[in-house]
Amino acid sequence: MLTGIHIAFAGGDARHLEVIRKCVELDATVTLFGYDNLNPPPVGTTKGRWVPGELTGIDVLVLPVVGTDDNGHVESIFAPGTLVFRDEHAAQLKPSTLVFTGMARPYLLNLCQRHRLRLIQLLDVDEVAIYNSIPTMEGALMMAIQNTDITLHDAQTIVLGLGRTGFTLAQGLKALGAHVRVGVRRPEHYARAFAMGYAPFYLRDLAQCVRDVDIVFNTIPALVLTAEVIARMPPHAVIIDLASSPGGTDFRYAEKRGIKALLAPGLPGIVAPKTAGQILANTIIRLILEKKGNQEGLP
Amino acid sequence: MLTGIHIAFAGGDARHLEVIRKCVELDATVTLFGYDNLNPPPVGTTKGRWVPGELTGIDVLVLPVVGTDDNGHVESIFAPGTLVFRDEHAAQLKPSTLVFTGMARPYLLNLCQRHRLRLIQLLDVDEVAIYNSIPTMEGALMMAIQNTDITLHDAQTIVLGLGRTGFTLAQGLKALGAHVRVGVRRPEHYARAFAMGYAPFYLRDLAQCVRDVDIVFNTIPALVLTAEVIARMPPHAVIIDLASSPGGTDFRYAEKRGIKALLAPGLPGIVAPKTAGQILANTIIRLILEKKGNQEGLP
Amino acid sequence: MLTGIHIAFAGGDARHLEVIRKCVELDATVTLFGYDNLNPPPVGTTKGRWVPGELTGIDVLVLPVVGTDDNGHVESIFAPGTLVFRDEHAAQLKPSTLVFTGMARPYLLNLCQRHRLRLIQLLDVDEVAIYNSIPTMEGALMMAIQNTDITLHDAQTIVLGLGRTGFTLAQGLKALGAHVRVGVRRPEHYARAFAMGYAPFYLRDLAQCVRDVDIVFNTIPALVLTAEVIARMPPHAVIIDLASSPGGTDFRYAEKRGIKALLAPGLPGIVAPKTAGQILANTIIRLILEKKGNQEGLP
Amino acid sequence: MLTGIHIAFAGGDARHLEVIRKCVELDATVTLFGYDNLNPPPVGTTKGRWVPGELTGIDVLVLPVVGTDDNGHVESIFAPGTLVFRDEHAAQLKPSTLVFTGMARPYLLNLCQRHRLRLIQLLDVDEVAIYNSIPTMEGALMMAIQNTDITLHDAQTIVLGLGRTGFTLAQGLKALGAHVRVGVRRPEHYARAFAMGYAPFYLRDLAQCVRDVDIVFNTIPALVLTAEVIARMPPHAVIIDLASSPGGTDFRYAEKRGIKALLAPGLPGIVAPKTAGQILANTIIRLILEKKGNQEGLP
Ligand SMILES: NC(=O)c1ccc[n+]([C@@H]2O[C@H](COP(=O)([O-])OP(=O)(O)OC[C@H]3O[C@@H](n4cnc5c(N)ncnc54)[C@H](OP(=O)(O)O)[C@@H]3O)[C@@H](O)[C@H]2O)c1
Ligand SMILES: NC(=O)c1ccc[n+]([C@@H]2O[C@H](COP(=O)([O-])OP(=O)(O)OC[C@H]3O[C@@H](n4cnc5c(N)ncnc54)[C@H](OP(=O)(O)O)[C@@H]3O)[C@@H](O)[C@H]2O)c1
Ligand SMILES: NC(=O)c1ccc[n+]([C@@H]2O[C@H](COP(=O)([O-])OP(=O)(O)OC[C@H]3O[C@@H](n4cnc5c(N)ncnc54)[C@H](OP(=O)(O)O)[C@@H]3O)[C@@H](O)[C@H]2O)c1
Ligand SMILES: NC(=O)c1ccc[n+]([C@@H]2O[C@H](COP(=O)([O-])OP(=O)(O)OC[C@H]3O[C@@H](n4cnc5c(N)ncnc54)[C@H](OP(=O)(O)O)[C@@H]3O)[C@@H](O)[C@H]2O)c1
Repeated sequence: MLTGIHIAFAGGDARHLEVIRKCVELDATVTLFGYDNLNPPPVGTTKGRWVPGELTGIDVLVLPVVGTDDNGHVESIFAPGTLVFRDEHAAQLKPSTLVFTGMARPYLLNLCQRHRLRLIQLLDVDEVAIYNSIPTMEGALMMAIQNTDITLHDAQTIVLGLGRTGFTLAQGLKALGAHVRVGVRRPEHYARAFAMGYAPFYLRDLAQCVRDVDIVFNTIPALVLTAEVIARMPPHAVIIDLASSPGGTDFRYAEKRGIKALLAPGLPGIVAPKTAGQILANTIIRLILEKKGNQEGLP
Repeated sequence: MLTGIHIAFAGGDARHLEVIRKCVELDATVTLFGYDNLNPPPVGTTKGRWVPGELTGIDVLVLPVVGTDDNGHVESIFAPGTLVFRDEHAAQLKPSTLVFTGMARPYLLNLCQRHRLRLIQLLDVDEVAIYNSIPTMEGALMMAIQNTDITLHDAQTIVLGLGRTGFTLAQGLKALGAHVRVGVRRPEHYARAFAMGYAPFYLRDLAQCVRDVDIVFNTIPALVLTAEVIARMPPHAVIIDLASSPGGTDFRYAEKRGIKALLAPGLPGIVAPKTAGQILANTIIRLILEKKGNQEGLP
Repeated sequence: MLTGIHIAFAGGDARHLEVIRKCVELDATVTLFGYDNLNPPPVGTTKGRWVPGELTGIDVLVLPVVGTDDNGHVESIFAPGTLVFRDEHAAQLKPSTLVFTGMARPYLLNLCQRHRLRLIQLLDVDEVAIYNSIPTMEGALMMAIQNTDITLHDAQTIVLGLGRTGFTLAQGLKALGAHVRVGVRRPEHYARAFAMGYAPFYLRDLAQCVRDVDIVFNTIPALVLTAEVIARMPPHAVIIDLASSPGGTDFRYAEKRGIKALLAPGLPGIVAPKTAGQILANTIIRLILEKKGNQEGLP
Repeated sequence: MLTGIHIAFAGGDARHLEVIRKCVELDATVTLFGYDNLNPPPVGTTKGRWVPGELTGIDVLVLPVVGTDDNGHVESIFAPGTLVFRDEHAAQLKPSTLVFTGMARPYLLNLCQRHRLRLIQLLDVDEVAIYNSIPTMEGALMMAIQNTDITLHDAQTIVLGLGRTGFTLAQGLKALGAHVRVGVRRPEHYARAFAMGYAPFYLRDLAQCVRDVDIVFNTIPALVLTAEVIARMPPHAVIIDLASSPGGTDFRYAEKRGIKALLAPGLPGIVAPKTAGQILANTIIRLILEKKGNQEGLP
């Protein structure tokens, strides 16, 4: 239970509703900033005004997945305009207060460091990345089904990268009957891909592997689908690039060659906002409880 | 090879292009009726005028998947207007000429019977239904991903019917990590569902099984998702009805209760027109060769 | 419930214990013949003496899976010697009494026909064959693991026949990462094998498909692995023949060529006697209830 | 190619034959010590006498998987008696000569350190452990099929540890239709198990999870199956312990309680010696080539 813990949500995206719901369920005290248009507010929560004074006594601050922009602006889909998260707000928070966001820009990193707040970038947490790989995979399959005129079953596919996303994606493709080759750079990834029944290859051989490919999925945040590689793909091939912006594809060249290439960011929030919210909620709650447990000397 | 065999295509849909390509590849003589706007026509084909005289000598006639309407009109996406398939055309064809369509209405059935033409309704051919179950499954998965806010992984799903489509669909869902219950009426389907790792139930118990369901897929061409059943579903449940029109759902009641229910016909042609064309091509060619073989006393 | 139903077990194999247990659980009256050495008898049962008089009033007679021999002898693993099932015993049973066995020889077929008893050969019942295909598959995998010096993963395997056993077996092999080719004779089996992700071929091409095979599993009860086919296998290949005796392999030739070939009958009773007993129990009970229901006009 | 590289094999197990075959194929110079009874020696190899002088010029030394005992004795299944690997032999080898074994005892570790030889313990190499997890899994499945009277399909199984072996094993079990719970201690393993479709739990809750288990597989090299845990298992449960000797089970208590518990070491060499040999061969060759490449400045 989170009884006695005061959690503030500042700015919000669709996934927050699930997080709020779970926090209330566990008996936390929940205050919402930037939810002006959400009427009535979720049962068990109160709305606050974004002034420093109202942040006193907060134990946990939850920001949207995208965090702040370079000037500290925090967006909310539930309010017009934005909040600004400034030094005077941060100053009200106790040192080592937990601050959650998805991915932080330098502004937020610096702010938290100055005030010794414990910033947690959720998308970086290993378990979150693994859970998120599931809706990401489903979104990628959906895009592949929509953007080709053949079935995934019996299609020639390539997955680049066998990290958290690539692993789950390769599994989903194989499960639907695609032929799956996986491009890696480490022998142990090569071995694991083989054990999973994918056909592995080393990334240095990528250009030789794309000749008969139907769909390439990229999960590597580095330029791997270069002009040289794209030049060897068949004209009907489709690229679905999942790596964080700007992706790993030479999109300019792909367009020139007439190869369909799609950058597909933020799939979990798009294809499964409820599941995506639950993923964040579970980890946020786990980390709050862990901190609480440590302080109280619990296991 | 189809050398010496004269194949006519009358009216056309997107899938025909694949069929035409394969027939030409196997050296058939190919004439196209109702392809006025396709310029130039595919290499190795000639265009004909839809007058009875031009049908003399034809060995095989391929109509679109939807066949004719109740007045003999045949549509073509490659021409304005329609052709009409009349007695005077049929009269030019030798008895037991192969006439291919997807599904035939009474008009076409009667016409072929009168002139003793061998009409083959491709969507009824067992192997075609099995191959088509693959793009149908992929289309159904795509719709489920699009129309829910959760992942298929770990979702509670139900598939109604373990025929050719239901079987493949259940497999796809399980492959992506859904919990799959399958409603059947035959003990051997119950056994096969169990052996495949699905949780089977008898359709008479359907109403008791839907209480916690997230997505119901129907493949049974009979009213199974009655108001009584729908009344017991949770409000967030989604119905994806694949059975041929009018489906097996009480759509009126679903709408009244606010349950999202979608009728999804013709998925193979929508999500994988090229694969769908190849499926038809392969069976058309197999049946032509089989007939040829039988006549020549080949195996 | 089976309240009021009198079930006799005559002779017995290991699987019967599970059937007896379930019948008692459902409140049937159970009498055991030929269980002399089973002391005490299972709770809720009584032992009988195999004399015609004691069969009066019996509603259901359960014989061992192997039934009788050609002279009516019925074996029991729980007693020395055998019982003999004669006309005088059968004469005590009401017409259309259910008599269960696995597979019947002519002696038993004739006896039941003469006395108008309803003989059910369980191994022929579709659902039983499907459920049994699971332990059969596991037994076949076990034998393959034991009898080769390579892993099943990445092995080249062939399954002959896509019936109830072949289907489940191919699935198990694929699940463990083997390459699976399936030999069939029907286009719809070809299509289903493809949809399942196996590589299908027509049996007429078998001889061309065995060149690089590591393990061949046969489920076809006809001579398919002829000398001509075996001659083309690599020397290290292993044949595991599951078809009912004498199997579908030219064992004499295989031995001559030094190819390891194993006939593997009765796997369910060997690798999973408890599961195998439950399979029989479930179907026996379902059929008893069905008969009871029909008589009482129940659904 | 390994042209010009001189590889010595000292002592030998069955897997070495595959390694030798591959080295010869790649044109290495191969000398065998302790292969007296292997006549004729494999094509392209020569036998040597185990005296220091004959080790001059050796680039790579391959010992058996079990390495030396505490006195330097090296076993060979191809010769009576043992070789002894002493300082005077090691002194003949150039510094940073590659010495391969599976697992090294202190004797060998010290010897190599004294003479600055680069000892590689193959079973520790990540890729080897992953490849070996495949035959280990198959061996574990085989043992489970043999040692239970039910099918793996629909069985309640638990896998302890989601390392290299546990991961592959859980996958094999799920593939055959078992219910698979996986005991872990890290949140990211919990997440990955969930994504794979296993039901994860934390090891601290193990005692509560075994009540209805049919088979427990242990891969954790620490005492996890304590008396307390075993006491809560049903009497028919079976433990298959794969962790390196002495395993993670209180075998004494299991026996006392009548729970079948099996320690199963060395499965790859037992169930798939040829595959196991190829795994070693591939990594040995990869590492030799890598070293050669580095020295020559190749990529
Ligand atoms: N589109 C979406 O909706 C969505 C959802 C989730 C994640 N993402 C994005 O997808 C990407 C992957 O996420 P992840 O969680 O899978 O990360 P990850 O676990 O770190 O995996 C990244 C993979 O890329 C490989 N890699 C990285 N740099 C490389 C380079 N220069 N050359 C070759 N290989 C390289 C890594 O190989 P090594 O292990 O050898 O380093 C690893 O296999 C990230 O950009 C993430 O932001 C997008
Ligand atoms: N949406 C699309 O894109 C698409 C694509 C392909 C097919 N379809 C349609 O999907 C439907 C199924 O096609 P299919 O090829 O799978 O057919 P199928 O193989 O004949 O399967 C139909 C299933 O429905 C069951 N069934 C039929 N009538 C029933 C009733 N009154 N009560 C209970 N169960 C009943 C059958 O059970 P029994 O075996 O016990 O009779 C069988 O399992 C058809 O309407 C077809 O036109 C749609
Ligand atoms: N070893 C064991 O423990 C064990 C356990 C269970 C069953 N069995 C035995 O395994 C065999 C198969 O059982 P099942 O239940 O799978 O039977 P099934 O469902 O009837 O399947 C038999 C398969 O063999 C094919 N076939 C039959 N005769 C053929 C022929 N002359 N040429 C080509 N194909 C032919 C059938 O093809 P079509 O569909 O085209 O006819 C079908 O695919 C039986 O002999 C059974 O007794 C053994
Ligand atoms: N029987 C055979 O034929 C055979 C074949 C191969 C391997 N093995 C043996 O199997 C064992 C596992 O090998 P592996 O390659 O899978 O090793 P691994 O990748 O290191 O995996 C070991 C697993 O055990 C967990 N673990 C270790 N100590 C633990 C502890 N004290 N409490 C809880 N969890 C603990 C680890 O969890 P963390 O990740 O949280 O540390 C990890 O998940 C080894 O003993 C190996 O020698 C046997």
